[in-house]
Amino acid sequence: MRNILIIGAGKSSSYLIKYLLDKSDSENLHVTIGDLNVNNAKVLVNGHKNSTIIHLDVFDKPSRVNAVKNADIIVSMLPARFHIEVAKDCITYNKNMVTASYVSKDMQALNDDVKAKGLVFMNEIGVDPGIDHMSAMQVIDAIRDKGGELILFESFTGGLVAPESDTNLWNYKFTWNPRNVVTAGQGGAAKFLQEGKFKYIPYNRLFRRTEFLEIEGYGKFEAYANRDSLKYQNVYGLEAIETLYRGTIRRVGYSRAWNIFVQLGMTDDGYTIDDSENMSYRDFVNSFLPYSHTDSVELKLRHALKIDQDDIVWDKLEELDIFNSKKRVELVKATPAQILQKILMDSWTLAKDDKDMIVMYHKFGYLLNDKKHQIDATMVTLGQDQTYTAMSKTVGLPVAIATLSILNKKIATPGVQIPITKEVYTPILEELKTYGIVFKEHDVEYLGYNPLNL
Amino acid sequence: MRNILIIGAGKSSSYLIKYLLDKSDSENLHVTIGDLNVNNAKVLVNGHKNSTIIHLDVFDKPSRVNAVKNADIIVSMLPARFHIEVAKDCITYNKNMVTASYVSKDMQALNDDVKAKGLVFMNEIGVDPGIDHMSAMQVIDAIRDKGGELILFESFTGGLVAPESDTNLWNYKFTWNPRNVVTAGQGGAAKFLQEGKFKYIPYNRLFRRTEFLEIEGYGKFEAYANRDSLKYQNVYGLEAIETLYRGTIRRVGYSRAWNIFVQLGMTDDGYTIDDSENMSYRDFVNSFLPYSHTDSVELKLRHALKIDQDDIVWDKLEELDIFNSKKRVELVKATPAQILQKILMDSWTLAKDDKDMIVMYHKFGYLLNDKKHQIDATMVTLGQDQTYTAMSKTVGLPVAIATLSILNKKIATPGVQIPITKEVYTPILEELKTYGIVFKEHDVEYLGYNPLNL
Repeated sequence: MRNILIIGAGKSSSYLIKYLLDKSDSENLHVTIGDLNVNNAKVLVNGHKNSTIIHLDVFDKPSRVNAVKNADIIVSMLPARFHIEVAKDCITYNKNMVTASYVSKDMQALNDDVKAKGLVFMNEIGVDPGIDHMSAMQVIDAIRDKGGELILFESFTGGLVAPESDTNLWNYKFTWNPRNVVTAGQGGAAKFLQEGKFKYIPYNRLFRRTEFLEIEGYGKFEAYANRDSLKYQNVYGLEAIETLYRGTIRRVGYSRAWNIFVQLGMTDDGYTIDDSENMSYRDFVNSFLPYSHTDSVELKLRHALKIDQDDIVWDKLEELDIFNSKKRVELVKATPAQILQKILMDSWTLAKDDKDMIVMYHKFGYLLNDKKHQIDATMVTLGQDQTYTAMSKTVGLPVAIATLSILNKKIATPGVQIPITKEVYTPILEELKTYGIVFKEHDVEYLGYNPLNL
Repeated sequence: MRNILIIGAGKSSSYLIKYLLDKSDSENLHVTIGDLNVNNAKVLVNGHKNSTIIHLDVFDKPSRVNAVKNADIIVSMLPARFHIEVAKDCITYNKNMVTASYVSKDMQALNDDVKAKGLVFMNEIGVDPGIDHMSAMQVIDAIRDKGGELILFESFTGGLVAPESDTNLWNYKFTWNPRNVVTAGQGGAAKFLQEGKFKYIPYNRLFRRTEFLEIEGYGKFEAYANRDSLKYQNVYGLEAIETLYRGTIRRVGYSRAWNIFVQLGMTDDGYTIDDSENMSYRDFVNSFLPYSHTDSVELKLRHALKIDQDDIVWDKLEELDIFNSKKRVELVKATPAQILQKILMDSWTLAKDDKDMIVMYHKFGYLLNDKKHQIDATMVTLGQDQTYTAMSKTVGLPVAIATLSILNKKIATPGVQIPITKEVYTPILEELKTYGIVFKEHDVEYLGYNPLNL
């Protein structure tokens, strides 16, 4: 039996565990799942004979070392900041490792040791980062193989609610960490490349500078810019590219309404509101508007942001019940962002039967024989239920496939790495297709930022 | 002879030095001025017999200690962060000290030692902070003395250009540190009290939430909120106050135009622009706007911020020549704020004969015999020339008067302090009047935030 240790059995581990247990007989696998709280793990393995569940605190060195020693490969599904001690143990005891997290500086610093021992530390092999790397590099390499030169790369991902569960005016529910949604885009200007020029968008304009996308069968979407569009420029070998843009997908109209919260200051996570505990939702909104002896909170907000009474964004605000003077915030010394999150969770929490959806959209512009071409590639994955979500599927399956491939020495090049080489992405993307994670590619006319061809 | 050591002979030291030298014979004073660069000091003292100029580096301990030992009182006109070593020497050698700076935590921590030695460390005795403290506390104490209870305190200060030198559409020139003007209001939401409610204004709304002020003979002004309106609530004994607001004064229309820079992201000081060195002013503006093959920078800006062609803000932008494609930024790896500062300095630098102006406006609302009353107090000081500026006068004279008062033991209560007691402010405000720094007080109808009396 080959022993696989999975650390962390949270929301994104369901498909990962199912994949490995489904293959445990044929592939001769034993799966050990360690977590601080073993309840979710118990539900997920459902007493499978090839599994063991252990209580594991990664900060308790003896038990962590013991768990690592007994495994042939370690998968860490913990938050990124908890990987490093596990990673060091993996080097000490000559174990391969897999994570879905961004490569931290600490992790990258282990590269020489990992290479020296001939180990594979595969990271960023979830959905975003993960499937985005693999699907993008497959097309980029194909374009290069036929002699093309990349001039445009745009890549968009969104975690949304499935069309059948899309029941509110925002066309949005929390399918992942709500806090990240509320604070999205903060911390500095978004920076990207358009036709060879650096462009900058400050936070207060981010949700007004969206791009539209359309996916056959799923309709229109919009995307706002990520802060880090240039992050993979060198990694993908796109040093000479003219346009490089990465964004987050929402349904059309979300961003314009969200911008109201940004403009009022409700997404700020940098200070606490003194009397938040005793505030009503209405008081909270009012604290960002001037005092008036006579005017309503509603009119002050409409006036401040120049919102017409028949504007759909107003219905979106009312749907969230933000003007309610009876509902209390209750949070003690909370930041505006924490309070807004609470208000949104009243409306945007998935109902029992709700399903989620992952949407990805890549655009590749290239020059071949002095002519400009474009390929658009799209992927939509729907969740099955609240355990087997689209998020868990698109994160967990690539992790699982990579883990088994490393164990079977199909992925063997040593080092701290991300899945951007043919050796890695070709078999994984091929296998993901059999699970319905499929990219549809279309050749489209290259328009770049000159859509009228002037 | 009593020896006064002034450390720092910058822009704000001209009136300070003149005051002390003018009184040096009658008061038996010798003034030593120490600076890293002695040129400005030489111009200011003009060979006065009761003065000595020394080269002084405050980080060179032996020469600093020597200078402190030889003085009876030390005035530090350095930036606030440089005071602390001087302050420690003053304790060691039993010297009183005066600064115009905010009391830092390090300075406050010396309070016990200062008191134990019976020394006076007077701080925040320039204009803002300084004259604002003294003039406000004088009215507040007078209201209390007649049995009134403060319910509203609003205080506004501005460093502007004098009416005769007010020659551009912004009605503004740099009369002090340009960098502070460009980054004003950044670093977190402005917080204040209105009618018993905390109010918060995020940076992106700060310049759209102004208040209007009018001063007889000088016309209309506007003010935007400072970040720290509640800073002196306890110091002034205003714990029960309903409305507490501090702001910065500009001419009407400045803030609405400035908001364009804020919205575009041009005031951001948190990242550098890669190719800033080779950019034109036009390129700089364009980097905050979407790429277009056809549309002009002008039209994209108008469209993004919905600026009509006949809106005066547009003339303000054109006056600054920000669309010029020939003028180059030239700064290497500059932040947006640094580039904007350079562009503004082309237009807003004081000409040789330009004069500056300091404007202060206080509103005091109070309850007396169950009736609400209000006192408005205003002060305007004009500069004489580019050496004897209004800024230098309103900063330097209170410092000078306090220094002599401490030397003459008229101010004697020991401790690290700010000028909020009658002992301190009464004689200083009285003497400032003889130099034309006069507050005009008016009893006005109390309207608070219910101007229609509904």
